[in-house]
Amino acid sequence: MSGSPERVVVIGADAGGMSAASQAKRMRGDDLEVVALERGSHTSYSACGIPYWIAGDVASVDDLVARTADEHRANGIDLRMRSEALGIDLDRREVEVRDLGNSAGSSTYRLGFDHLVLATGARPRRPEIPGVDSDGVFGVQTLDDGERVLDALERAPRRAVVVGGGYIGIEMAEAMVKRGLSVTVVTRSPEPMATLDPDMGRQVHDAMEGMGIDVRTSARIDAVETGADGWLRSVVTDSGEIETDIVVLGTGVSPETSLASAAGLPLGRWGGLVTDLQMRVFDTDGVWAAGDCVESIDLVSGNRVHVALGTHANKQGRVLGTNLGGGYATFPGVVGTAISKVCDLEIARTGLKERDCDMVGFAYLTVVVESTTRAGYYPGAEPVTVKLVVEQRTGRLLGAQIVGREGSAKRIDTLAVALWHRMTVEEISALDLGYAPPFSPVWDPVLIAARKAADRVRAGS
Amino acid sequence: MSGSPERVVVIGADAGGMSAASQAKRMRGDDLEVVALERGSHTSYSACGIPYWIAGDVASVDDLVARTADEHRANGIDLRMRSEALGIDLDRREVEVRDLGNSAGSSTYRLGFDHLVLATGARPRRPEIPGVDSDGVFGVQTLDDGERVLDALERAPRRAVVVGGGYIGIEMAEAMVKRGLSVTVVTRSPEPMATLDPDMGRQVHDAMEGMGIDVRTSARIDAVETGADGWLRSVVTDSGEIETDIVVLGTGVSPETSLASAAGLPLGRWGGLVTDLQMRVFDTDGVWAAGDCVESIDLVSGNRVHVALGTHANKQGRVLGTNLGGGYATFPGVVGTAISKVCDLEIARTGLKERDCDMVGFAYLTVVVESTTRAGYYPGAEPVTVKLVVEQRTGRLLGAQIVGREGSAKRIDTLAVALWHRMTVEEISALDLGYAPPFSPVWDPVLIAARKAADRVRAGS
Repeated sequence: MSGSPERVVVIGADAGGMSAASQAKRMRGDDLEVVALERGSHTSYSACGIPYWIAGDVASVDDLVARTADEHRANGIDLRMRSEALGIDLDRREVEVRDLGNSAGSSTYRLGFDHLVLATGARPRRPEIPGVDSDGVFGVQTLDDGERVLDALERAPRRAVVVGGGYIGIEMAEAMVKRGLSVTVVTRSPEPMATLDPDMGRQVHDAMEGMGIDVRTSARIDAVETGADGWLRSVVTDSGEIETDIVVLGTGVSPETSLASAAGLPLGRWGGLVTDLQMRVFDTDGVWAAGDCVESIDLVSGNRVHVALGTHANKQGRVLGTNLGGGYATFPGVVGTAISKVCDLEIARTGLKERDCDMVGFAYLTVVVESTTRAGYYPGAEPVTVKLVVEQRTGRLLGAQIVGREGSAKRIDTLAVALWHRMTVEEISALDLGYAPPFSPVWDPVLIAARKAADRVRAGS
Repeated sequence: MSGSPERVVVIGADAGGMSAASQAKRMRGDDLEVVALERGSHTSYSACGIPYWIAGDVASVDDLVARTADEHRANGIDLRMRSEALGIDLDRREVEVRDLGNSAGSSTYRLGFDHLVLATGARPRRPEIPGVDSDGVFGVQTLDDGERVLDALERAPRRAVVVGGGYIGIEMAEAMVKRGLSVTVVTRSPEPMATLDPDMGRQVHDAMEGMGIDVRTSARIDAVETGADGWLRSVVTDSGEIETDIVVLGTGVSPETSLASAAGLPLGRWGGLVTDLQMRVFDTDGVWAAGDCVESIDLVSGNRVHVALGTHANKQGRVLGTNLGGGYATFPGVVGTAISKVCDLEIARTGLKERDCDMVGFAYLTVVVESTTRAGYYPGAEPVTVKLVVEQRTGRLLGAQIVGREGSAKRIDTLAVALWHRMTVEEISALDLGYAPPFSPVWDPVLIAARKAADRVRAGS
């Protein structure tokens, strides 16, 4: 097997792709030629940091780049920026590539591979309404998107409409408030943060209103209107028109798998690539995938889910690269942990919310407890609400949501590990968690919630 | 079985005893007569809060009392304050009680019981050196102790020596600094916080020096010297004399089991009561125990350990009360989680440290990683150091230590749950923990440490 090294072509040079590329190259060195194609102009960046960059919390776009193109090249990776994969020929084991940087016009070439890594990420779901492609309507998926928003802010807009009340929506709403704009958030859900149950989402709603954000729930956007000057004028909803100078789309993302689909690769229920535990695309030799373009196993329900998060992309990329590099590693799945904040309200969730349980077929009960982040008598003790969703009879934890002030959100990690191990709330209530007055009441809020839930399970109610 | 109700006598009315009493009474109502004896003058208080009260962070002693004597009485508990149990007669099933509140002199009586709950807590270990009982030498175990320290501070002392560099020692050192005193900490260990490995304790040492605390390590105290005025003058150590106006003992605690021992009850290796999972003292019908006077199972090593912490006392008391009340609950054990802080340095540990592994017989490797509490680019990202102690070959997590700035310490909970489930570091590195830039780098510091440890385990080094 001596002679020319194997070649892997990586499509997409962000978290998943470049983690895979770096790990495989580290393990195999000159024995593996790694070519990475990136149609954009940045590598390995933190998309999750974009709202904070726009808010002004992060000074420079460079801060969001974990590793530059040159750094990757110094590691021996043949990274080709502004290079778009146009098609995948699985039979001939070639990718067709367009060099977007060639100003002389379209220049395409074919690139053979022994292994192919699909790390094509996700694309924003744009509402299919008139005017959505107008100037002044922005996604916030890539650093290029972020630069466009910052350019628009230079024109000193006064009003912003954020479409969508999920993570990106609330983070962008806060960013716009920090930039001095008057902000309206329009969401189809009954409360913002539809990844929480509505009773918990209500607290987010209240906090956003407390920041002066106008929150329109259960609302539908019908059109984006443009003035005679060609610039954005308003957003038309089913309950009236909202004048605005800028529109930010925070309406979620879908796996970007058009290339994979065109190549006939198998896609899952959510349109993502489906892989085995080593991140090999099922039924397709030498094709791998990682990051926002794949579906993962939800360890609570057993279903495949699509969760676009940098932390998963990094882990999956590293697992992929380890296996491609000749080692062994697996990505077992997710439990659905996510955290965020809006102003000083921290928001966290893991596992299944009530509606997820209904869909999956779990019979459940819920408890909600109010406690404090520190001992009640300790300075800086802040309110925290913990909700648990628990299987009836068995007492197995199915999901958890936490909303509260400083020191609340990361408590979700304990419950995420508990979910991972299918713990019952009674078992959880016995856990040996850190206690000291500056960090927790003598019963941590998580333990109080578990204890109350265990009482409910025992009582059979 | 009608007729007179059963009587339970509870000795000690702090966390363990009163959690047990309250829970049993709640469950059995008039069917159970609960008499609780307390020789001190406070019930159900937070001893862990004493340093913060002395520091001035907590305004009033009342803030530290979770439930007053009157509140307990309103719940139907016959609570007898200033009542000391002098002896236990297991054959006659009686406790001999002295009423300390009877100013007419000693008044004793015998109190029969069907069930006995021992919740006698712990007593400070006082170094056996000349002068240790002088005026000006204080323990900080009870609220009465705390009041004595505050009284002493009224006399405007300028210098304090804190003996012991553990949790109480460092918290009291910080309290004395906040009160404007010049503070010296004397500890026998090579570094403060001997519940950490010395390399991690060194960071605590540096932080304490940064606060202006004089830290004397590997030092032995030989005597406390008193001046001609009868008041404290200095502490004599093996490396010289330290002038001081006040001495605080933070030299740890031992189970207070003298009554139990005199009654012939079985004690464990650390002098604590040994119970079954329901908190029944082994081999002794109708005798129960909870809180700082009992030993617990260490779920990592399998050994019995003595850990005096309010969180365990509360849980054990509640489990005891549930069983005494006719229900069923167990206290499975501990993994040795503890957190604290000195100034803005947070300190946490769980499981076994290196020396514990040596004693138990685990062969281990260690990793130490430096990371940040938030994404590196996010405002307020602070340094955090995570150390893992991992079994060789198997990769099983054996222990963890975290030292860092704000947002560090409670991360220990994730590792505590991992220990509970005997997870390997490779399994831990796949956990779905909360990620967002304000809360964590894209690889949480805990995950980075687990990943590096897994690499080490795989490499066999």
